[in-house]
Amino acid sequence: MTRVAVVLSGCGVFDGSEIHEAVSVLLHLSHHGAAVQCFAPDIDQAHVVNHLKGQPAEGESRNVLVEAARIARGNIKPLAELKTDDFDTVVFPGGFGAAKNLCTFAFDGPECTVHAEVERVLKAFHEAEKPIGMCCIAPAIAARVFGTKAGGSGCTVTIGSDADTAKAIETMGSTHSDQPVTDACVDIANRLVTAPAYMFGDAPIHEVHEGIGQMIERTLELAGAGSTA
Amino acid sequence: MTRVAVVLSGCGVFDGSEIHEAVSVLLHLSHHGAAVQCFAPDIDQAHVVNHLKGQPAEGESRNVLVEAARIARGNIKPLAELKTDDFDTVVFPGGFGAAKNLCTFAFDGPECTVHAEVERVLKAFHEAEKPIGMCCIAPAIAARVFGTKAGGSGCTVTIGSDADTAKAIETMGSTHSDQPVTDACVDIANRLVTAPAYMFGDAPIHEVHEGIGQMIERTLELAGAGSTA
Repeated sequence: MTRVAVVLSGCGVFDGSEIHEAVSVLLHLSHHGAAVQCFAPDIDQAHVVNHLKGQPAEGESRNVLVEAARIARGNIKPLAELKTDDFDTVVFPGGFGAAKNLCTFAFDGPECTVHAEVERVLKAFHEAEKPIGMCCIAPAIAARVFGTKAGGSGCTVTIGSDADTAKAIETMGSTHSDQPVTDACVDIANRLVTAPAYMFGDAPIHEVHEGIGQMIERTLELAGAGSTA
Repeated sequence: MTRVAVVLSGCGVFDGSEIHEAVSVLLHLSHHGAAVQCFAPDIDQAHVVNHLKGQPAEGESRNVLVEAARIARGNIKPLAELKTDDFDTVVFPGGFGAAKNLCTFAFDGPECTVHAEVERVLKAFHEAEKPIGMCCIAPAIAARVFGTKAGGSGCTVTIGSDADTAKAIETMGSTHSDQPVTDACVDIANRLVTAPAYMFGDAPIHEVHEGIGQMIERTLELAGAGSTA
């Protein structure tokens, strides 16, 4: 049974984990019989967005771990407790939370900083040659952490085909590969699997689900446990 | 294209819509090519639950419509705007929000009251002979609204096999049918389709998804647009 850590960043597309993506990840992992444990950093969200108005909710604060627990039905641990030895792979769903709470890409672009625990986890899985799966805007975190701008050797990721984000990924010293919403990009050397998901903003949910399915299947294959389909 | 209204009750299993169920409903509807519009009542939640601790968050209040907008990615309307003429069927995912915000079943059991807009919608679809799909604890609302205790003629629903909840459904003057998590119960006369979902608390998410798939398929069939599988 493949042991998978899923790293969430809150609960809601505009200030946390994209909910459809997070559930799609959990659903595919369950179909494959994986043993899943969710994690999230125990920090305040960058801000709270009223998802009805699409505007920041002034004066309100929420905790990333507490809100992510909504997606995990309470079964979640602080990211600081994630030990690489306990898992075969790690998966990061997208949503603005990945670009606001796990790093500052939404605010600082290619100059962004990455939350220390997120950077620790990514580098530890990378060094252990354990695969990493990411979707939507989350691949930008890998592009930053492993990019030449930060002293790494670069990696190849997809966020779909958004030109501005692709350019920012190149600026961080990584490579962007255009992909359709139903497919995934595999960087074999870095054991890094990425999928566009809702970076195709108007994609129907079942196509997002299909692309995330590709991402999960390729990630599990690299972990030595996926199907060979 | 079948026009489907989905009624949410917040965002999170303990005080709102069960997130996995809501996403599973949207995913199946998308697979079937349905035209979906989400709704939720524009009211305060009964309370806010910290999903990490599993305990009420004292002194905090949240709005059902605003939180449900997280699941709907902002594309949601107040329940008061739901017109039966505009839709072929209506679907209610579960979660404690259905039993706390859409009615008071979680607090009052068989003596519960149902939110006026929820009762209006259920009765309007029922009178128009348009099918209604519900899962998890949501079927208790139909059992109340259509039950003999409230002057109706009763309906048949499933919430799985939980004995206490089944008894409460019978007390409200409706009939309970035991069903496994992967199946749905169809009350042909009332055009009412129900599925247990997470009322099987320890069911894996892909089995919940399978049962909700049955519920959606049977509901769309009754709306005259499903597959005949």
